[in-house]
Amino acid sequence: MAEFTSKEQQFLSFLHEQNAYKEALTTLQWDSHTQIPRGGVDSRSEVVGILSGKLQEAETSDRMKDFIEEMKATSDNELILQAAAECEQVYDKNRKIPNAEYQEYVTLCSKAEAVWGEARNKDDFSLFEPYLSRIAGYNQEFAERFGYKEHRYDALLDTNEPGITVKTLDEVFPELRKSLTGLIEQVQASPVKADVSLLKTPFPTVQQKALCEAMLKLIGYRMEDGRLDTSAHPYSFAINQNDVRLSTKYVQDDFRASVFSAIHEGGHALYEQNIGKDLAGTPLSAASSMGMHESQSLYWEMFVTADYGFWEKNYDWFRSFAPEHFKSVSLDEFYLALHDVKASLIRIDADPLTYPMHIMMRYEIEKGLLNGDMKAADLPTIWNDLMRDYLGVVPENNEDGVLQDIHWSSGDFGYFPSYTLGYLYAAQLHNTMKKEVPFDECLKTNDFASIRNWFTENVHQYGKTKQPLDLLRDATSEDLNPTYLVEYLTKKYGAIYQF
Amino acid sequence: MAEFTSKEQQFLSFLHEQNAYKEALTTLQWDSHTQIPRGGVDSRSEVVGILSGKLQEAETSDRMKDFIEEMKATSDNELILQAAAECEQVYDKNRKIPNAEYQEYVTLCSKAEAVWGEARNKDDFSLFEPYLSRIAGYNQEFAERFGYKEHRYDALLDTNEPGITVKTLDEVFPELRKSLTGLIEQVQASPVKADVSLLKTPFPTVQQKALCEAMLKLIGYRMEDGRLDTSAHPYSFAINQNDVRLSTKYVQDDFRASVFSAIHEGGHALYEQNIGKDLAGTPLSAASSMGMHESQSLYWEMFVTADYGFWEKNYDWFRSFAPEHFKSVSLDEFYLALHDVKASLIRIDADPLTYPMHIMMRYEIEKGLLNGDMKAADLPTIWNDLMRDYLGVVPENNEDGVLQDIHWSSGDFGYFPSYTLGYLYAAQLHNTMKKEVPFDECLKTNDFASIRNWFTENVHQYGKTKQPLDLLRDATSEDLNPTYLVEYLTKKYGAIYQF
Repeated sequence: MAEFTSKEQQFLSFLHEQNAYKEALTTLQWDSHTQIPRGGVDSRSEVVGILSGKLQEAETSDRMKDFIEEMKATSDNELILQAAAECEQVYDKNRKIPNAEYQEYVTLCSKAEAVWGEARNKDDFSLFEPYLSRIAGYNQEFAERFGYKEHRYDALLDTNEPGITVKTLDEVFPELRKSLTGLIEQVQASPVKADVSLLKTPFPTVQQKALCEAMLKLIGYRMEDGRLDTSAHPYSFAINQNDVRLSTKYVQDDFRASVFSAIHEGGHALYEQNIGKDLAGTPLSAASSMGMHESQSLYWEMFVTADYGFWEKNYDWFRSFAPEHFKSVSLDEFYLALHDVKASLIRIDADPLTYPMHIMMRYEIEKGLLNGDMKAADLPTIWNDLMRDYLGVVPENNEDGVLQDIHWSSGDFGYFPSYTLGYLYAAQLHNTMKKEVPFDECLKTNDFASIRNWFTENVHQYGKTKQPLDLLRDATSEDLNPTYLVEYLTKKYGAIYQF
Repeated sequence: MAEFTSKEQQFLSFLHEQNAYKEALTTLQWDSHTQIPRGGVDSRSEVVGILSGKLQEAETSDRMKDFIEEMKATSDNELILQAAAECEQVYDKNRKIPNAEYQEYVTLCSKAEAVWGEARNKDDFSLFEPYLSRIAGYNQEFAERFGYKEHRYDALLDTNEPGITVKTLDEVFPELRKSLTGLIEQVQASPVKADVSLLKTPFPTVQQKALCEAMLKLIGYRMEDGRLDTSAHPYSFAINQNDVRLSTKYVQDDFRASVFSAIHEGGHALYEQNIGKDLAGTPLSAASSMGMHESQSLYWEMFVTADYGFWEKNYDWFRSFAPEHFKSVSLDEFYLALHDVKASLIRIDADPLTYPMHIMMRYEIEKGLLNGDMKAADLPTIWNDLMRDYLGVVPENNEDGVLQDIHWSSGDFGYFPSYTLGYLYAAQLHNTMKKEVPFDECLKTNDFASIRNWFTENVHQYGKTKQPLDLLRDATSEDLNPTYLVEYLTKKYGAIYQF
């Protein structure tokens, strides 16, 4: 790497200061999810609030603006220019919202989260409705301030998934929906029936944990640069490239909860552990986007450790961790049970075929709220209608319906689509990867390094230096194309359900 | 509590900001000692360095000076005035050392720690000597800048133990030394012999941990406001009053290492958990001094859980956690073995009678280095001479001698005396407490709440609002008096060793 000028070094030091806040905040977040004693919870939110404020202060400071301008005018170092561009984006976005307004919004969301919980408990949407209405209003306002070309919702999509617009999603999602609907119908019509009860048996936590760790090591998660903890919601915490921690949750009689969550989070971690070392300490040392991050977690969860080849090679090994019960479950019964398909009311319980349906209907609602076509008060009815249309099931109450997700109470609009975009990215990347790496052969020998290295070379190493659609195009020589996911799922589920 | 004016509230918010850095730093320190994966170590020091720098920046800022002046001039709230006084002390002290000079010193110490390790491994003091010499020189310089009345070393003592001077220690230590020498000789001459081999037996870590936790709960450590972890060096980490974490270490065949370290750290934790809630978030929410902190850890370790009454009540209970082996060890054999006395070369291996000897000879050396009577180059000889004088044993190499402690390489001068001052404080407080609380009766019923509450009322609650010697005088109606420790040890060891 080129030597830095003294001014460039000052800029990097300034970025390292902000990185120190981020590393501390991520460590505190990990601690809050996995280790903190009950007594420590109360004052933690104040500490996090203060340090986040200091970080934002630096990111939107005049000093930052001066650095950005000076780097753009004087530097010819690529890393410096990319970092300055990233800083400028954050600076511009944050400066567009007046501080006082943002504080009001944060306070509103914090209250809304509590009210959302209460509304769920009482199954009373009307408690939450005024909050949701105001939060949607703020997001309309923010979108106006951020600016957009065609649709107001584009401004929020761009925050989570740069380059993705309503236009893209309105092309991609209907096609995907149609294909998935067909697949789900074929599965439902198939004489083949999965029996998930075969997977449910007491499985001691200590053995589940050993299995999770062994599987993480198998796929190449560097345990010495991370750790596996327990939390209510599985998560990954990227403190820095050499300290990426994971958490999973243990369900006593269903090992799938811990193992597939661990692998999912492990996929996120493989991304973070393999970002280019030259980006460390800068804001470029992060994933390209939410969706690209999700592509990596879904990849290892769905495309690798849910592949028949994986279990053909490893089912006996799995049994060495598992209770006796699995001795009487054949490989094929086990694999079929892992691929049960069922329209569920709850997003987080959904399988790979129905999950995108949950996302796409939420996309409809967010878009409607943002452009004013829908009103918060009408959401319970709209929700149930969409559930009927998309999945053919209708919740009996709002707790299992419109109130099921925390996202909107936290103000997370424009975030849901990334889950399905990640799935599409994963399938498209998989399609190209298979041409360059003998995937099926790799599974036969547990050679995950070859697979992982392809992703490191084509995705991980770039961190945030490439936007997701550029990354995808550079890796696959093609724009976003939902065909690959549909083809993959058709082939996979066709083989399992014999259609 | 009185309402605060708006200016007072601004000052408190400013203090809460600094408190946020402290809580984050303590959490990072806890993480570094107990949880961090190997890969995370490298960048952690940069993060800690940056956040510590931000904290110091705030503590020595013009804004801080303005607040201090304004509070002194306008506030009549006691808490505010005490907090301002504490801030002023920190401000003044830090401003007396130019930033560049302090940075040089920190860098020197960081190198010196590594060289100290190398010198130990090679048993070559000459490697470390130039570093020690320079570190002592800096400390002379710092002491001059801080200012003092009589002895240069007073300036460093005052940093750790406000109010303690060379004059005090030169009165107290010789008397203590004489008495301890007499006691050690009597123990050595006694026909009673402790057999520590009785305590050494394989003791599974999981059982040791259960015992540690049970004993901590017994003495009143609030487990829901803390946690017990494992680290190479036992430690306590006070993140805030409701999150005080402990660590201990496990030695497979000697339970004393884990249990008495846990109790020692638990004593520190009882102090921190019981500081007045009104002080939270201010710099007054801390122990009065290093020595007063140590008085509380030593108190629970030495005066409570090493008391005969404690084991008379709890030995059978202890056996329920312990291996079969202890069924054949009687209470009296067990208790005697816990009170083995032996002049050791190594400070951290020393027993309660010989430990202060190690401290007092280090005090002689620090004083000599600071006032220029001793030179770093002569320390190996001086050390061995002092060991012979104080304890009658002489190390065969410098690793077991002058190079055994990390303190001087880290620049910790003026810190050692606090260990023995804490012991003296503990004995003096114990003497008064026993007049107000039926100590022996309490041990018979495991009523540790009465004992603990006395300390909370007389010590803990005040946090840093009282200096250690004031705290001691207010609690015991007397100035520091070493007689109480000598009397206590004479009575205790006289009973055990029959003299």
